[in-house]
Amino acid sequence: MSTAELTLYTAKVCPFAQRVEIAFAEAGSNVAKYQIDLKNKPEWYAPKVNPASKVPAIAYGGPKVDPADPSPESTKIAESLVLLEFVADLYPSAALLPADPVQRAQVRFFIDAVSTKFLPSYFALALRGESPEKVYAALADVQALLSPAGFAVGDKYTIADAAIAPFLGRADIMLKRDLGRYEPGVGAGAYKEIFETPKFARLQKYYADVSARPSWKATFDEDYLVDYTKRVTFGGQK
Amino acid sequence: MSTAELTLYTAKVCPFAQRVEIAFAEAGSNVAKYQIDLKNKPEWYAPKVNPASKVPAIAYGGPKVDPADPSPESTKIAESLVLLEFVADLYPSAALLPADPVQRAQVRFFIDAVSTKFLPSYFALALRGESPEKVYAALADVQALLSPAGFAVGDKYTIADAAIAPFLGRADIMLKRDLGRYEPGVGAGAYKEIFETPKFARLQKYYADVSARPSWKATFDEDYLVDYTKRVTFGGQK
Ligand SMILES: N[C@@H](CCC(=O)N[C@@H](CS)C(=O)NCC(=O)O)C(=O)O
Ligand SMILES: N[C@@H](CCC(=O)N[C@@H](CS)C(=O)NCC(=O)O)C(=O)O
Repeated sequence: MSTAELTLYTAKVCPFAQRVEIAFAEAGSNVAKYQIDLKNKPEWYAPKVNPASKVPAIAYGGPKVDPADPSPESTKIAESLVLLEFVADLYPSAALLPADPVQRAQVRFFIDAVSTKFLPSYFALALRGESPEKVYAALADVQALLSPAGFAVGDKYTIADAAIAPFLGRADIMLKRDLGRYEPGVGAGAYKEIFETPKFARLQKYYADVSARPSWKATFDEDYLVDYTKRVTFGGQK
Repeated sequence: MSTAELTLYTAKVCPFAQRVEIAFAEAGSNVAKYQIDLKNKPEWYAPKVNPASKVPAIAYGGPKVDPADPSPESTKIAESLVLLEFVADLYPSAALLPADPVQRAQVRFFIDAVSTKFLPSYFALALRGESPEKVYAALADVQALLSPAGFAVGDKYTIADAAIAPFLGRADIMLKRDLGRYEPGVGAGAYKEIFETPKFARLQKYYADVSARPSWKATFDEDYLVDYTKRVTFGGQK
């Protein structure tokens, strides 16, 4: 268990940040969270925490400080997938990565499939109205990688689960409400296909399993996300 | 030291595959290499080794077999970055990842910068004739991440070095010869900027250091690459 200073800069709306919040929760760490308003970022955030000006990021080590006045002595780390590995390294007893090299490779291969297949196709649908067929193909590939029972890789929760869950959650609540930059009905149709047809039965059970965990309930606020998406992302257009 | 069966499916021309060849060489493993002719792939390769039909991939474990007749009992793993972590996990004493969680995160953040900044900009230049300015910006960011002396992260060779080196090597030998889908002279100009101006002095020293290692000399064949690129990639057009 780490005792160094640790602050997670996050935003409730951000799925990349939720990945890291989940990993800390699964590790049993009550990391200090500092919310960044993405529409009005504090002027110190980019120069003092993350030059890319994105969440998630962490400040690790250094003196105890006000998170709004980060110390130059702490190490800053960004990128959600880098941070997932970091949390796994920091809390080895939480076993967020299996011990076996082959299973570790399967975790990382699963995450790669999420990054290169599911995310691009989902964003293409939600933000540019492209065809949901590519999402179905991507999720069929992802589903084929899932363990027959249990979690993504084996029967223990790993960073592979933390990497995908926030995006399944957003697909669930946004498609269900037809919220996205597509023709009316496209989202609702995709919702039915992904979350209700037997073709995706294994994925549906998997999503039920990951979203039943305390780490999910502590980091996913459906009402907030729906309200934020309507109000800010689509600025009242939807 | 692993004693399980291990075959690396590779191709001399492929920078992603060279990453993994370097990592095995740095780990002191004389892994069995099986060359895949990318212009004439064996019909068993996709169904029996890598459904994505790409190199690199490995077969790990299972019975001793002819690599051209892979066993269904071995585990197949693909994706160069997944394989770099796998090699680091398989040979912990080679310390291809540092022990310290912060340094491990720095290794992974460096690799992310290579993947998201350097590679896309370099391919855009080499394959689509886009501006070299983006390559300079990406390499300035990468250079800023390099340790002041030594390797990418600290003074030991890590998978961060294996991840970038093959692409610096190809930029070197291709730009120098103006080989790429850009206007004549653009490559040679980019070569001068990257490999000769003081602005990139730290990167130049770094490249000299990584390319002086036995792991480089054993896995990089300049004459072969230049000939292949002229003959196959550009089919005699250049
Ligand atoms: N590749 C990054 C992506 C993070 C990202 O895109 N975060 C968004 C919010 S979800 C952000 O902070 N964007 C900057 C902004 O909105 O100004 C990661 O995996 O951490
Ligand atoms: N993302 C993959 C990329 C590998 C890749 O693109 N390999 C190329 C050769 S450099 C390949 O095998 N392409 C398939 C083909 O040429 O048919 C990795 O990192 O391993």
